[in-house]
Amino acid sequence: MKVYLSGEIHTDWRERIETGAEGLGITFTAPVTDHAASDDCGVAIMGPEDDKFWHDRKGASLNAIRTGLGLRQADVVVVRFGEKYKQWNAAFDAGMAAALGKPLIVLHDPEHAHPLKEVDAAANAVCETPEQVVDCLRYVLTGKLPG
Amino acid sequence: MKVYLSGEIHTDWRERIETGAEGLGITFTAPVTDHAASDDCGVAIMGPEDDKFWHDRKGASLNAIRTGLGLRQADVVVVRFGEKYKQWNAAFDAGMAAALGKPLIVLHDPEHAHPLKEVDAAANAVCETPEQVVDCLRYVLTGKLPG
Amino acid sequence: MKVYLSGEIHTDWRERIETGAEGLGITFTAPVTDHAASDDCGVAIMGPEDDKFWHDRKGASLNAIRTGLGLRQADVVVVRFGEKYKQWNAAFDAGMAAALGKPLIVLHDPEHAHPLKEVDAAANAVCETPEQVVDCLRYVLTGKLPG
Amino acid sequence: MKVYLSGEIHTDWRERIETGAEGLGITFTAPVTDHAASDDCGVAIMGPEDDKFWHDRKGASLNAIRTGLGLRQADVVVVRFGEKYKQWNAAFDAGMAAALGKPLIVLHDPEHAHPLKEVDAAANAVCETPEQVVDCLRYVLTGKLPG
Amino acid sequence: MKVYLSGEIHTDWRERIETGAEGLGITFTAPVTDHAASDDCGVAIMGPEDDKFWHDRKGASLNAIRTGLGLRQADVVVVRFGEKYKQWNAAFDAGMAAALGKPLIVLHDPEHAHPLKEVDAAANAVCETPEQVVDCLRYVLTGKLPG
Amino acid sequence: MKVYLSGEIHTDWRERIETGAEGLGITFTAPVTDHAASDDCGVAIMGPEDDKFWHDRKGASLNAIRTGLGLRQADVVVVRFGEKYKQWNAAFDAGMAAALGKPLIVLHDPEHAHPLKEVDAAANAVCETPEQVVDCLRYVLTGKLPG
Amino acid sequence: MKVYLSGEIHTDWRERIETGAEGLGITFTAPVTDHAASDDCGVAIMGPEDDKFWHDRKGASLNAIRTGLGLRQADVVVVRFGEKYKQWNAAFDAGMAAALGKPLIVLHDPEHAHPLKEVDAAANAVCETPEQVVDCLRYVLTGKLPG
Amino acid sequence: MKVYLSGEIHTDWRERIETGAEGLGITFTAPVTDHAASDDCGVAIMGPEDDKFWHDRKGASLNAIRTGLGLRQADVVVVRFGEKYKQWNAAFDAGMAAALGKPLIVLHDPEHAHPLKEVDAAANAVCETPEQVVDCLRYVLTGKLPG
Repeated sequence: MKVYLSGEIHTDWRERIETGAEGLGITFTAPVTDHAASDDCGVAIMGPEDDKFWHDRKGASLNAIRTGLGLRQADVVVVRFGEKYKQWNAAFDAGMAAALGKPLIVLHDPEHAHPLKEVDAAANAVCETPEQVVDCLRYVLTGKLPG
Repeated sequence: MKVYLSGEIHTDWRERIETGAEGLGITFTAPVTDHAASDDCGVAIMGPEDDKFWHDRKGASLNAIRTGLGLRQADVVVVRFGEKYKQWNAAFDAGMAAALGKPLIVLHDPEHAHPLKEVDAAANAVCETPEQVVDCLRYVLTGKLPG
Repeated sequence: MKVYLSGEIHTDWRERIETGAEGLGITFTAPVTDHAASDDCGVAIMGPEDDKFWHDRKGASLNAIRTGLGLRQADVVVVRFGEKYKQWNAAFDAGMAAALGKPLIVLHDPEHAHPLKEVDAAANAVCETPEQVVDCLRYVLTGKLPG
Repeated sequence: MKVYLSGEIHTDWRERIETGAEGLGITFTAPVTDHAASDDCGVAIMGPEDDKFWHDRKGASLNAIRTGLGLRQADVVVVRFGEKYKQWNAAFDAGMAAALGKPLIVLHDPEHAHPLKEVDAAANAVCETPEQVVDCLRYVLTGKLPG
Repeated sequence: MKVYLSGEIHTDWRERIETGAEGLGITFTAPVTDHAASDDCGVAIMGPEDDKFWHDRKGASLNAIRTGLGLRQADVVVVRFGEKYKQWNAAFDAGMAAALGKPLIVLHDPEHAHPLKEVDAAANAVCETPEQVVDCLRYVLTGKLPG
Repeated sequence: MKVYLSGEIHTDWRERIETGAEGLGITFTAPVTDHAASDDCGVAIMGPEDDKFWHDRKGASLNAIRTGLGLRQADVVVVRFGEKYKQWNAAFDAGMAAALGKPLIVLHDPEHAHPLKEVDAAANAVCETPEQVVDCLRYVLTGKLPG
Repeated sequence: MKVYLSGEIHTDWRERIETGAEGLGITFTAPVTDHAASDDCGVAIMGPEDDKFWHDRKGASLNAIRTGLGLRQADVVVVRFGEKYKQWNAAFDAGMAAALGKPLIVLHDPEHAHPLKEVDAAANAVCETPEQVVDCLRYVLTGKLPG
Repeated sequence: MKVYLSGEIHTDWRERIETGAEGLGITFTAPVTDHAASDDCGVAIMGPEDDKFWHDRKGASLNAIRTGLGLRQADVVVVRFGEKYKQWNAAFDAGMAAALGKPLIVLHDPEHAHPLKEVDAAANAVCETPEQVVDCLRYVLTGKLPG
């Protein structure tokens, strides 16, 4: 099974899921999680831009190759919303996953439940911890419940 | 031409676009913009819920009929990001529009350009004012530039 | 808006929805609700069969033209589960609607909630009365809540 | 070849098919067949619900990841209707399989033929025993008839 | 409802269906039924060819615009197999209709049933007379049986 | 029938086709054929760019709304290759039409036949004059040959 | 590369292609070519039918699992038209291949070119001998021409 | 990852990309780059044509098997525009890639930026050197920037 881990890149949630899911035979993919590389990839490779808007565009378009492939080739998409930043790209990925008919697991703290209600309504599961995501993935693959 | 106006519901941007586009023969659709009705529609029709999470779910799932039809039947999707709230549903709609191959016009202030770079990169046009959106729509339909 | 009314054919639920929705501009479609005609249409038109299995097959295949078109051309699909019969064709229609990405409203009494949980989980709204279905449709089209 | 075995979970029909098909190189998938785990998986992983309706919803949505992947990745879908329960989820799976264009084999006793006529009409084969399903699969793969 | 009448062009079956279906609001489309025009359209418009193979190719490719649109825009496809010629284009159209998920009605004499068994197996109805096709279309639209 | 007229914008071929096709009930669409407006639309509406590359990008992305809609909503796509310029956008449109399964008519002088062989091979008809295109469209709609 | 070899089952054309293509790494699939098994598979497995029409239907529907998978999973579809029988199923397969966007190679003698002109017009290559088909496949895979 | 290298065949850009990407685990595909074989493949295999137009058609249709498969099976499509020839087939491939939703990298010298603006606007990245393409591919796969 291929699982794409989209969204927040400043905590260790991806590592916790990957560690917890060891032995299940899952291949995890993700966006580039090096914030600086992700922001500057376009100009670093294809040349500088004077205008920050186009600096960003070059990077975002290049990153879209990786994120688009990750999403489209995934069997399950997990999207994490964290504490900081606008995270509109996470919600954008969730919208793409929904339109593509991908099973969707959303991971966020309860205090974000109201503004995320449209995203949650498109999801198969809404988790609060990475360990719950692992339990979901294990159950989906093996039928085994935790504990 | 059918244009779906997604996103922020607290300013008059939809009215400004609809007024500016008079005479172009465009049919505009939109989500329910009455915030209270949108939040409570599920329980108002199908009965109350003790748990706010499911109160929200019932409403979001019902609203998804309207927003899903608006998006899927649109020739062009306009998504507005405003000043307040998380607006993850706006970014979610943009992601759906992108995955469905819908032409996308994004409307936001310049200070949101960086966190919206992934959304902007999927758009055909990035506007700062509703009047620019009208100019885009008029040009697309008639080939006429403003002024 | 086109709404396909699938499922149970022995009570007046379709009439109650159509009457309640007057003035909303909805076009309703439905399977043939004359039970005898629906069962015998194949042999009545294309000749008798000795074997009841093929008698049924001829009718079911012919009816599938109408039900398939109704489902595929609908903007919203409503599926009603009633008190009698196995109603596997209603659940089959719900499965087709889900796979086709059609917004789905399910209508059934609360005592059927557990065996219908997979169907309900694919639905945008789960109603107990035809009047709630009308309220959902009115809200989706006009944004107005009942009362 | 991947075959998804959907439907009834209280008899040994899956084992009989898997045993009979040994050596054919078929990978079989199935829903979680532990009835209690299947019913309670949502609350066991993501926390309890006071309301049985949402208890069921959480489980059904989580199970839909597995059943949806099983269906969508299958080359052939087999759906078994048994003696007990409403089995609307089996008919729902059959409807999804039909809409997705999956070859469909239906397995049921002759006395259910009339209420299943719409499902049977969408199927490539209607079998009465698991051994007939095996014979169908062997023939499809090898061209060899039984006996 | 749009119905595409594909196949044999040497008898009056299209007229009999169109006459019989008067008042049902059906729009019928068909290939060009003038045999000479159909054979020579390519070279008549785009210039002569020395080689009969390319003479035929030019015509067949031009005719494919009309037949392709007729098939793709139809709600129901009727394919008639007659007494003369190879009629491989009729079977080709039936294959396209099947792959496109179009409801299919096949019209042929009983003596062709065996060589047409694969086509019939993909059809919703197999008729022997144009009048039976009319009865099928009337039933699908109105629910009324003949007589 | 909707026909999209893509490609060269410096001769009167569109007018000749539209005049010749009068009375056939065809709706013609086209890109913006005012060369200056087409080049500058992006910056004229959304603000100037220092860099010609992004000046062009803004315009091309905005024009893609119109050309994309024209292509996707067309029943038939006509692509004209003329004498001047690289015309890569015409070939790009032809590639999109082919991938979308749109019937394609290509219009060009014989001396371009070799470099256009891949485009021609994807077309239903290859014409040398606008009048031949009209004859093709008339034949497709009415079955009548010229003369 | 996967190549589906559809059509005529009474000469050794499949063997000649498979032998000629040795070393190219192609996986060939085909319908069941045992004529008697193909005709009787349905009743042999699922029980006899009094009516030859349903005897044929049972077999054709079961065979459609294999032929449908072969077609849908193929990278290239080869369809052979021979000297005997109506071969409507071969043309039906060609129609399906065309609608599914599969590259199509047609193999037939020159005297069938006129009645096969619609099928040929949908094909990438029209061959007269199995050896030409092998040469086409070798060229497609390796870029090497014969001789 | 599979990358299709479309376009210009007279310089060593493919070799530079393949060499630069060694160790990344990419499978590269490409059209037949032997110009003479590509032009003559149709007649060499299926027999000569008197008319150059059909000579070209036979080859182009056969080549379309390889180019179509390359495009459709690719994860990323790279299209190179060089100095010579019309290169309409390169732009045609880019249009197909865009319509198929494939991530697209365009490679051309800056002086072609204006006539390629529609193609560039559909691309995720616009590069001037093969080495930049390699850097893009490495970044997409590993997240590592050059230098």
